[in-house]
Amino acid sequence: MNKVVLAQINTIAGNISYNEEKIINCIIQAKKQNADLIIFPELALMGYPFGDIFMRHKSIITRQLKSLEKIAALTNDITALIGFAEPTKNTNKKPFYNSVAVIQNGKIINTVRKRLLPNYCEFNDYRYFEPSDKMSEIFEINGEKYGVLVCEDSFNDKSFFKDECIYSIDPVAEIMEQKPDTLINCSCSPTRCGKEYIKNALFSSIASKYNVNYIYVNQAGYADNLCFDGLSRIYDKNGNLTLRGKIFEEDFITTDNLKGNINPIPIGMKEKIDFDNFKLDYKNDLDRTYKSIVFAIKEYFRKNGFKKAVLGLSGGLDSSICAVLLTDALGKENVWGISMPSRITSAESKNDAKSLAANLGINFFEIPLAEALDPLKSMLGFAFQNVKSEKFDKSTTIENLQARLRATILWSVSNEYKQMLPVATSDKSEAYIGYATVNGDMSGGFAPIADVTKTKLFALGEFLNQNRKIKNVIPQAILEKPPGAELKINPLTGKTVCAEEENMPYEFLDEIIWYIETQGFGFDDLLNHKFYYELEHNISIEQKKEWINKFFWKSKCAVYKWHIMPPSVVTDVHSINSVEYRQPIISGVY
Amino acid sequence: MNKVVLAQINTIAGNISYNEEKIINCIIQAKKQNADLIIFPELALMGYPFGDIFMRHKSIITRQLKSLEKIAALTNDITALIGFAEPTKNTNKKPFYNSVAVIQNGKIINTVRKRLLPNYCEFNDYRYFEPSDKMSEIFEINGEKYGVLVCEDSFNDKSFFKDECIYSIDPVAEIMEQKPDTLINCSCSPTRCGKEYIKNALFSSIASKYNVNYIYVNQAGYADNLCFDGLSRIYDKNGNLTLRGKIFEEDFITTDNLKGNINPIPIGMKEKIDFDNFKLDYKNDLDRTYKSIVFAIKEYFRKNGFKKAVLGLSGGLDSSICAVLLTDALGKENVWGISMPSRITSAESKNDAKSLAANLGINFFEIPLAEALDPLKSMLGFAFQNVKSEKFDKSTTIENLQARLRATILWSVSNEYKQMLPVATSDKSEAYIGYATVNGDMSGGFAPIADVTKTKLFALGEFLNQNRKIKNVIPQAILEKPPGAELKINPLTGKTVCAEEENMPYEFLDEIIWYIETQGFGFDDLLNHKFYYELEHNISIEQKKEWINKFFWKSKCAVYKWHIMPPSVVTDVHSINSVEYRQPIISGVY
Repeated sequence: MNKVVLAQINTIAGNISYNEEKIINCIIQAKKQNADLIIFPELALMGYPFGDIFMRHKSIITRQLKSLEKIAALTNDITALIGFAEPTKNTNKKPFYNSVAVIQNGKIINTVRKRLLPNYCEFNDYRYFEPSDKMSEIFEINGEKYGVLVCEDSFNDKSFFKDECIYSIDPVAEIMEQKPDTLINCSCSPTRCGKEYIKNALFSSIASKYNVNYIYVNQAGYADNLCFDGLSRIYDKNGNLTLRGKIFEEDFITTDNLKGNINPIPIGMKEKIDFDNFKLDYKNDLDRTYKSIVFAIKEYFRKNGFKKAVLGLSGGLDSSICAVLLTDALGKENVWGISMPSRITSAESKNDAKSLAANLGINFFEIPLAEALDPLKSMLGFAFQNVKSEKFDKSTTIENLQARLRATILWSVSNEYKQMLPVATSDKSEAYIGYATVNGDMSGGFAPIADVTKTKLFALGEFLNQNRKIKNVIPQAILEKPPGAELKINPLTGKTVCAEEENMPYEFLDEIIWYIETQGFGFDDLLNHKFYYELEHNISIEQKKEWINKFFWKSKCAVYKWHIMPPSVVTDVHSINSVEYRQPIISGVY
Repeated sequence: MNKVVLAQINTIAGNISYNEEKIINCIIQAKKQNADLIIFPELALMGYPFGDIFMRHKSIITRQLKSLEKIAALTNDITALIGFAEPTKNTNKKPFYNSVAVIQNGKIINTVRKRLLPNYCEFNDYRYFEPSDKMSEIFEINGEKYGVLVCEDSFNDKSFFKDECIYSIDPVAEIMEQKPDTLINCSCSPTRCGKEYIKNALFSSIASKYNVNYIYVNQAGYADNLCFDGLSRIYDKNGNLTLRGKIFEEDFITTDNLKGNINPIPIGMKEKIDFDNFKLDYKNDLDRTYKSIVFAIKEYFRKNGFKKAVLGLSGGLDSSICAVLLTDALGKENVWGISMPSRITSAESKNDAKSLAANLGINFFEIPLAEALDPLKSMLGFAFQNVKSEKFDKSTTIENLQARLRATILWSVSNEYKQMLPVATSDKSEAYIGYATVNGDMSGGFAPIADVTKTKLFALGEFLNQNRKIKNVIPQAILEKPPGAELKINPLTGKTVCAEEENMPYEFLDEIIWYIETQGFGFDDLLNHKFYYELEHNISIEQKKEWINKFFWKSKCAVYKWHIMPPSVVTDVHSINSVEYRQPIISGVY
């Protein structure tokens, strides 16, 4: 058998010299180990996703081709598969093919062009690529035959996807007519809730169906809201998994019998998620969610030249979870938690924030808001004395003022320290209904939990307390109290207003989001569906209707905020992140 | 000859009932006038651009088809051409064809499907549409023959575009084989600097080349950063313009001899712009720029349910131009200008802001910053006493604090009034190099001049002073002083630091931007190009290199800000607005 290397690298889109160096180093290392074949991910040389950059930086196209020649010249005594953006050289087509160069003896002996181009959600292949209309030829090394597929080419198996096939051809079936011994899939495949189960089942079923070895090489990395999990792997001809690379980091995997170490994956990640039924039990996706966000933070900071993060610690759930994630990504010495209590912040919240910081060992200080908030309030009160509505002091103005003053302080802190970014702590449930303040809690250089719903965050908090090396860093009180921004007092109770009083129960809200994202439910579908929430709570149909109505109305007003969210990481099954879902601000639906 | 109606309507994407009502009203009116044919724009019934909304709101697809049936049933005694998103009903294809229904005698007798699908800049047709692979048949009314094209189908004439043709087929040449008397082009075409010249020359040349009448119907409207100018029109068989609709508003144009009123267009709009050579003379594009932004503001506010705007008036160029544009879009009674001087704001700036507001007749008040800034500074100074860098009070922290406090005040004002939006006043030159403050001057619900460079704004200021009904509303001092945010004092001069000291001359900066956007110049191209700026200024090659380097370095750091800019309007020849140019935040080039 041939000795094969799966080069699970982490590239930067458009940075040809950076990617070239990584590729060359891997080839040199593979040659030292006398490997026969080295496989890189889809678009390894150009990097992915590269967006429109080639339109303004035309030189990267020629630089990439020169680099490919240079790499080819180095590639003797080994076969290398290198993904690159191949210019179509034809004005009648899209600019590129999404290709894999097959390099042997210093020459490109074949280019395999992607046939199936995805255009849904985060994928936009047709903007840049021309689909190939013919199947590539297989190649040989020492009598072993290999067929190459590019990512989506492997995702249209009719016996697996049945009615859900979205393309007319199946490149796997076509290439199998040439009877390769091994199929190779070069990919750039982002992680999502529930996706690993499908990938594993699909690849395994293809291997056993065709009695073929199946090698999958995926990039590890993060770029522009997408997290690529790596997890390159091999299946034998019976569909058994025989090797698996690391998750969320680069890997250089050598095998001379298509077997090897099967690296562990996060708890529950390979389980099937039941998208048809909402439940508050997120247990099969918590560990993956946690690790993907930590990796995204690490990569976003590193690739943009930042080392430190600062966030406001309110003693609430969102900021507490963010603090844990940042600590695990950047190290406790690189995280600053600032408590910024106002006059209505409870002593409990202040203490919870302080305890969390102490438990994590992060930098911590307190800046009470009153000193600046009071003069600002009186200044504005004076300016607003002629405003007819006389809302001031009873209105959201004061609530928002607190949130915005806090963000202003965080940006100021980040200005004072080198390589520091302020972090936005708002979550997905609140983003959906616009319950996050522009220039306030949704402001920052990165938004770690913008794609995690509130009920999932509660579950994640419990999970982190039980499963991190240091247990119970999040004070139990934070996981038990009802969420609320502590921005105003309810005059009837004398207590701060909790978020659910203003909106609806988070359990109900998150269930709406779940069905919209997994089932595409509209208003009527939601109203007619028996909610999981209804099993434990007796609510009238009027109440249900009111909440669903409120959800759509608030979402409509929130769409603008979705467009100005800081960079984040898509991690849920679907998202409102504009890299995934393109909702116009002005539209008749929302 | 047949009586024809050009129905230049303004739709809302995804709002089927809104669009349906408009279409039906037009048909009823056309029938009253005994018209034979009524023509609507591309995608009139679905609205454009509709983004991904159909993926979550599947019901709008069936609602649209039902609506089309309803409209068809009403369409007796007249022929109607109605653009709609036609489901492909085939899982192997993109979801829709971009079609025009030809309705006669209550029935859809044909659907014309778009053949050429643009995918560059703001266009993303391939994400949603399947191209048609065959030419549609022409249709007849009273013996006159009509051929229908959908927008881009008319943009690949080989004798006109020569080497710049980007498609292999020319639908115009193909449909002309059926010998229609008249070509009809249903479009959704956004306005841009220099685009009208090309459209006019192209349509005219097609009409004369084929000896055919040419009718163009475009939508008027604004959505998601794009401004559609309308200007529907007719050319006779000699290529002469014989009729033209209104610009930047709806129009209902009836003609029984393919002739009619030729509505005026903005000064210089039909002239050819010389993209090869940068000049500071923007005169052929100022009126169009002004009118397109005013229209965009009007539409953005109306379609999102806002009526009033508030902005900070610094006495500088950006905020002054924004104030004029807002006044002309919303009415002086709906604009609030707030002066928020700090201790270092000059008396001149304060007076200029006040004079501008008085000249415009807008609401005006002053909120001095010091009262809130001083406690905030001392509070932060105390918090930062342990920061080793000891930058505080000498750093950008204080500068940014002023900008952010101002934005906080504007958002507070907008909270107090009903239906009010705060407006971001940052310009394109500053956005390119990140010289705009997050949560500061780049924060707001809309950013009117985010696609206008600084030197063009100076020219626009002069233009407005000379050409608006009320002359010289912008105090001359504002158009003459060097731009600067008045955020810090230069210790050597004792004066506030102007922006060019910190960056580079705006004339040079804007010339870089021009060549990047019009010619795709990279670093070397820029260095080797003789700048217009160099004709009048003697600069060393080292100086030139330093500025170009600085530009690229600052742009690299600014990309994040491009992604969180408020909604705006693309109006220049190209833009960094993400609807037009998709630059990944993490990439090797910038």
